[in-house]
Amino acid sequence: MPADVNEYAYQLGAEPSGIRELFAYGLQRKTEIGADKVFDYSLGNPSIPAPESVKQAIIEVATSVDPVDLHGYTPAQGYMTTRQCIADNLKRRFGFQATAENVYMTCGAAASLGITFHAIAEPGEEIITIAPFFPEYTVFVGSAGCKLVPVMARESDFMIDVAAVEAAINEKTRAVLINTPNNPTGAVYSVENLQELAAMLARKEAELGRRLYLISDEPYRELTYGVQVPFVPALYDRTIICYSWSKSLSLPGERIGYVYVSDAMDNAAEVSTAIAGAGRALSFVCAPALFQRVIEKCIDEPTDVEAYRVNREILANGLKELGYEYIEPDGAFYLWVKALEPDALAFSERAKQFELLIVPSNGFGCEGWCRLSYCVSKDTIVNSLPAFKELKESYGN
Amino acid sequence: MPADVNEYAYQLGAEPSGIRELFAYGLQRKTEIGADKVFDYSLGNPSIPAPESVKQAIIEVATSVDPVDLHGYTPAQGYMTTRQCIADNLKRRFGFQATAENVYMTCGAAASLGITFHAIAEPGEEIITIAPFFPEYTVFVGSAGCKLVPVMARESDFMIDVAAVEAAINEKTRAVLINTPNNPTGAVYSVENLQELAAMLARKEAELGRRLYLISDEPYRELTYGVQVPFVPALYDRTIICYSWSKSLSLPGERIGYVYVSDAMDNAAEVSTAIAGAGRALSFVCAPALFQRVIEKCIDEPTDVEAYRVNREILANGLKELGYEYIEPDGAFYLWVKALEPDALAFSERAKQFELLIVPSNGFGCEGWCRLSYCVSKDTIVNSLPAFKELKESYGN
Repeated sequence: MPADVNEYAYQLGAEPSGIRELFAYGLQRKTEIGADKVFDYSLGNPSIPAPESVKQAIIEVATSVDPVDLHGYTPAQGYMTTRQCIADNLKRRFGFQATAENVYMTCGAAASLGITFHAIAEPGEEIITIAPFFPEYTVFVGSAGCKLVPVMARESDFMIDVAAVEAAINEKTRAVLINTPNNPTGAVYSVENLQELAAMLARKEAELGRRLYLISDEPYRELTYGVQVPFVPALYDRTIICYSWSKSLSLPGERIGYVYVSDAMDNAAEVSTAIAGAGRALSFVCAPALFQRVIEKCIDEPTDVEAYRVNREILANGLKELGYEYIEPDGAFYLWVKALEPDALAFSERAKQFELLIVPSNGFGCEGWCRLSYCVSKDTIVNSLPAFKELKESYGN
Repeated sequence: MPADVNEYAYQLGAEPSGIRELFAYGLQRKTEIGADKVFDYSLGNPSIPAPESVKQAIIEVATSVDPVDLHGYTPAQGYMTTRQCIADNLKRRFGFQATAENVYMTCGAAASLGITFHAIAEPGEEIITIAPFFPEYTVFVGSAGCKLVPVMARESDFMIDVAAVEAAINEKTRAVLINTPNNPTGAVYSVENLQELAAMLARKEAELGRRLYLISDEPYRELTYGVQVPFVPALYDRTIICYSWSKSLSLPGERIGYVYVSDAMDNAAEVSTAIAGAGRALSFVCAPALFQRVIEKCIDEPTDVEAYRVNREILANGLKELGYEYIEPDGAFYLWVKALEPDALAFSERAKQFELLIVPSNGFGCEGWCRLSYCVSKDTIVNSLPAFKELKESYGN
């Protein structure tokens, strides 16, 4: 431990991220052999540009709004007009009676999650999540002093294994955290799967005499291929949605999202108050002011998933022909592929020999799989297929 | 305590802010008797617009940068080009060998402070600050599990009482937090005062065998009237600067600032690593991408203090003529005025009868004074002077 700094913060700052290291390796490799020779499936960074309407909205507010108003502090919860516009959007799309009072603007999905854990749980409590899961969940839950308890998904289709979740619930459990569409598997939980989860949670609430929240992390909500993401608050009253426009409007660097505390829960007002307090504790003052106005103007902008859809088809069909096993992805921009040997780390290392950069499943809390982020150029996908063929052949089949 | 939410977060969310309540009272009162009849000195919200160059920079980057690059994730520490530009700016202005490696971009001054406390202190340690002080310091320090220890400034000129700070240092102390120019007093600590503090801290470091940081919170650095703010890292090696462009470029809602860990400190690399880790723990991913680019373009933009300077003169001279006692403000946009009775709360309440909204000193951790934020229109100041006269007369003199 270095002297006289906070040990936990130091470890978090020093800790290498497997995904980032793979990405850095790729950048280096590209300078060595040429960018078109490296097939980098490591990062979940949107490759589709923000829609033209975002640019127009930025220019419009910059030129038409008085700068003192435009760049001034917003209320801690966000502009009431932006919150109302989100509540109206949820009402219109899902027929759900959302109110602006329970919408809290955040600096993106990470902030939405961090604030939510700090708001609803006391240190020592447990948050269950479904493995494989986004690795930063461990950090956000741990920083709230809580314990992340991963429960493996059903390996046949990576839906929630409700019986396994039930078995993990105890008197310390405060919430179940789900991510749909899922990073890394691309799975979208079905209505039936979520109904089964909701019924079990309601039963356990009664049994334990203790509120159990369902936190739905939904940055990929609008990135789907022919399926609808069920609106979770309609299925379970004590739902909190953590949202961001990072993927749907391709704005990850601008840090803009929200927390929605379902109006259907009996303690919605208390939770929303605690959300505001947690934002203050984590030293968020307000979400970026200019982008709150941009969101108001662009909230009905459809998400352009066409390029991702094309990539997904080429990649999935190509791998299928080569005999790879994978989960049919209904959403997000990830393909979850079975490693060709039990050790996913070794598989990912071997893939590097064929200039394929794919993320082993270990960092996501499970073994034997790998994640391919297909938010890349179509050429990368097409040109990578011979490398996947060689990789497979190197295993003697 | 409400059931099943985090108690600390709930209390922070529910807790009324005296300043915000006074401001809300003012808004209500303005609808009752007319906006021009209420003299609202409550909020420290910049009244000078962001410079035209900010608008131009926003439009330029929005139209010229590829949106995938413009709105994409930046590295967690910020763009290297933005960090280099800040290091160069510090080098140019203060002749200090700052490097980009020790600049970390943040979502504003609150984030800079919250991240710094989490990075350098373990729970249970103490952070000393100079009273009167910005009330949110209690929240940011408390949320890191630490204790804020206020030490009264010298009441003659509100400089740092170095002997009193020394007396408060013990084996749990990790840092001294100063704010110059000061909110709420407007004081700018002199070189001599800071040198005395630095010498004492160096002596105590040796005596206790323990590193003591000096955290300098400087959002008002460029808002001065004829004095220069000494560059603290040149006076004390173990200095960390927490900065924001909220006041200097009038961008408080956009949440953009930085932490600079002095290159002169022996453990700079460890502290910068812990800063990055603390940002992650608090669920910041990166500072807003578009505004990092805007800062690069506008970093040399001079701060327009002319309107504040005019306000300051009219208000200070007007109150002097009426016989009020106050601290000559060298910086920020606050006038620190002695209450006309020992109970500042009662004084602030009586001022309301004359439609004067002034913040009692109690919230800032000291008694008998009040803060007037003169970031208001010149008319408000001119028209308020008769009310200050009546307020004084109501005390029989």
